[in-house]
Amino acid sequence: MKPLRIERAFTLIEPGPVVLVTTRDGDRDNVMTISWTMVVDFTPVFALTTGPWNYSYAALRKSRECVIAIPTVDLIDRVVDVGTCSGRETDKFAKFGLTRRKGRRVRAPLIEECLANIECRVIDIVARHSIVVLKGLAAWSNPSRKEKRTLHAVGDGRFVVDGRRLDRRRMMRSKLPEGV
Amino acid sequence: MKPLRIERAFTLIEPGPVVLVTTRDGDRDNVMTISWTMVVDFTPVFALTTGPWNYSYAALRKSRECVIAIPTVDLIDRVVDVGTCSGRETDKFAKFGLTRRKGRRVRAPLIEECLANIECRVIDIVARHSIVVLKGLAAWSNPSRKEKRTLHAVGDGRFVVDGRRLDRRRMMRSKLPEGV
Repeated sequence: MKPLRIERAFTLIEPGPVVLVTTRDGDRDNVMTISWTMVVDFTPVFALTTGPWNYSYAALRKSRECVIAIPTVDLIDRVVDVGTCSGRETDKFAKFGLTRRKGRRVRAPLIEECLANIECRVIDIVARHSIVVLKGLAAWSNPSRKEKRTLHAVGDGRFVVDGRRLDRRRMMRSKLPEGV
Repeated sequence: MKPLRIERAFTLIEPGPVVLVTTRDGDRDNVMTISWTMVVDFTPVFALTTGPWNYSYAALRKSRECVIAIPTVDLIDRVVDVGTCSGRETDKFAKFGLTRRKGRRVRAPLIEECLANIECRVIDIVARHSIVVLKGLAAWSNPSRKEKRTLHAVGDGRFVVDGRRLDRRRMMRSKLPEGV
């Protein structure tokens, strides 16, 4: 995997794709599917919503680290499988054939099959809303992937795939952060 | 506009589209473009990130209300225009030809040109992260719109348009909330 400039990492989350979030609790890795994420700052800071009902939440609280991995449309069935079973009973990496790679800044694993991965530190938990606030530390892309279209969950069991791209960089120049 | 069941309102935000957020401060309406949103609960509860640098933030804090409107791809230039000027100097509804409609639960206006609108109450502001937490009170769809494809901001001046839809309702049945 190839390093991605951290100034551009927010552009992976801003379009609102379904993501996989990996955690490491002691010597045990886990992964969950999450759609409830947002950018909070360009630096980058991200928020995601989860909570005690989710097995990964304990690992997030304890380790204060995770990796956000961006899957593409060809991984849809694995994304759904990861999201519909619990790491409490299942080693999801083995069961669903996801390949772990070591990151540089956190102990939670990167996922090789994904388009990109962001290593993150938990900087805050807003417990009353189960909102976890993350600082992105390092980002990686997988340049060997031909498929680059991500998935957007509707929330009713349907997904929207990325379609065409429209360029409004000229109109938006004044509002774009440095380095993007 | 046609009422939309509030149990389904989260499915408008979960895919991560760019949205327009309207506010009403005294007798003055304003609208901003926002991409930093997420679902926090199915009931529905939403979060968005904004802050004191944004003119709408004062109206959100003061009125404790807003409307989230979902624009489609044909509105891209208006979405960018709304996002690149400030309501401090501009009446954006007049300037960009957006039609206001009265909602039922809040004083901030619905936008007729949009695919759907969600009337919201501010239930919390997490000031240390500029995260505003909203409860959805009522939702509306515009059934006369033929164009239903929404926009996803990449954050660098480019946008991704909704592409094809994939159905995984059967695989996900056990995880879907009631009424969806």
